[in-house]
Amino acid sequence: MPELTISALRETGAPDCSHAMQVFGQTALSGDWLEAYHRIDAAFLALARRLNAEEYQFPSFIHASELRKMDYLHSFPQHATFPQVLRQSGDNIQRFRSGELVNADDEIQLTGMAAPKAILTPAACYHFYINFQQQDFAKTRLFTTRNNCFRHEKQYVPLERQWSFTMREIVCIGGEDEVQRYLQVTKSRLSGLFARLNMDIQWQTAQDPFFDPGNNPKHLLQKLHPNKQEMVFDDRLAIGSANYHRSYFGEIFDIKFNNTCAHSACIAFGIERWLAAFAACFGDNPQLWPLELLEEI
Amino acid sequence: MPELTISALRETGAPDCSHAMQVFGQTALSGDWLEAYHRIDAAFLALARRLNAEEYQFPSFIHASELRKMDYLHSFPQHATFPQVLRQSGDNIQRFRSGELVNADDEIQLTGMAAPKAILTPAACYHFYINFQQQDFAKTRLFTTRNNCFRHEKQYVPLERQWSFTMREIVCIGGEDEVQRYLQVTKSRLSGLFARLNMDIQWQTAQDPFFDPGNNPKHLLQKLHPNKQEMVFDDRLAIGSANYHRSYFGEIFDIKFNNTCAHSACIAFGIERWLAAFAACFGDNPQLWPLELLEEI
Repeated sequence: MPELTISALRETGAPDCSHAMQVFGQTALSGDWLEAYHRIDAAFLALARRLNAEEYQFPSFIHASELRKMDYLHSFPQHATFPQVLRQSGDNIQRFRSGELVNADDEIQLTGMAAPKAILTPAACYHFYINFQQQDFAKTRLFTTRNNCFRHEKQYVPLERQWSFTMREIVCIGGEDEVQRYLQVTKSRLSGLFARLNMDIQWQTAQDPFFDPGNNPKHLLQKLHPNKQEMVFDDRLAIGSANYHRSYFGEIFDIKFNNTCAHSACIAFGIERWLAAFAACFGDNPQLWPLELLEEI
Repeated sequence: MPELTISALRETGAPDCSHAMQVFGQTALSGDWLEAYHRIDAAFLALARRLNAEEYQFPSFIHASELRKMDYLHSFPQHATFPQVLRQSGDNIQRFRSGELVNADDEIQLTGMAAPKAILTPAACYHFYINFQQQDFAKTRLFTTRNNCFRHEKQYVPLERQWSFTMREIVCIGGEDEVQRYLQVTKSRLSGLFARLNMDIQWQTAQDPFFDPGNNPKHLLQKLHPNKQEMVFDDRLAIGSANYHRSYFGEIFDIKFNNTCAHSACIAFGIERWLAAFAACFGDNPQLWPLELLEEI
């Protein structure tokens, strides 16, 4: 099994990691790699459509007034990326402009910054709970979206751990039984895919992503009733996850299902990580990858 | 000609501006509006492919070490969005976590912030000049990419002026004559499209986007040899632009064409603004828009 090395990637032309290395793991894709990226996402979108999911496209920002309802900033402040701008008042812009701009360590020499009122999207599905807050669903509904997601990390690896990356999600909101059935059926379809691909992808139980274990009594509940299972490639890289939120988002965003609190679940795919897993299994030439098997999910 | 009002948009279900209004003009799209968005971008991508443009997908960030070579931070500091994170040292994260997080004005109550080393992409094409720096092209090449672009503004209007929006670009890098011919031919094709659509879209000369007029002697050259022409809808909204950079990017990024300094040009489309223009011309039901005419560019 060839290793995914920067030099190997450079030799095949794409992804261009020489530039990408400088931008915190983020990769530039072209040629066969970009074609593979499109085919992988198209396969998950096709799965979503077969499930009758409605497609949405959401903004890059999540507003602070919505964040206040979730505990993202409390649980994951180290991962949050804040879109900040220079204060426009007084001579602040002029002082910035006449300053050094960028120092020898590549640090931008900011002057006064306005307090941010948003973060950059850390998970694609959050927008659905925000979008449908205070609604009462008459039937269980499925949705899909793809978004650039931003998670600041201590270190980065191109394709595998990027500050920004693309996440495709298929989300179910509605009745408890139907939401659970969606998760079971789709996980089963995906398990079939993993077997046909003959890649080492195993479902593994992960810690609850919504609660800070050290501070939160719900963490014990999570251990008793695990709600996040990851698609772990090669025992080291989570290329996706299946998450059962119970009524967590239904409660905080007041989403109802026939006048009861809605349940929700999502299945998420990290597209760049699927590229990394295919490359590790099948080599650095995407033309040799068995991408056609993705069409049978 | 119906006006594009928030209430009208709400009645047709999408884009959902009730949520989007809170996130600085950024729109959520679904249903027929998202379908129209995809068809508009697909038409420009098809045009790019007919021109034999190579497709690329680039990261969200531009690194400070590249910004140092351009004068973006000097010319447009008021539009720059910096992806900032909390300092991970000492008890900074713990102080943030135990603080107010978000105040009553929806301002996130940051503690110490790390100096940023990047900005969020303000224009999709910049990545090409960065990507191909220090290369010598044996032939003139065409490229296309789409990216989320971020420009902070004093006020926002959904679809028309969003903090983040999607830009499709078709870029030509190489010999002076061929680059100019690319611009002329493609502008002519687009003029034909504008006529067939029977929309009020006029080419208008704009100020050079790369120089700060107040500080830069090149601004006079710009007036004599305009290099930016905008596709202006209804005499008020630039839905795209054609830009001739001469050897500006070739010089600062050391891109050669057969050992001479490369010239470059780009044609850019703001996809959300095309939605706004279609809605203003043809009403709020995208099924009634003449999108099939886009396929003939």
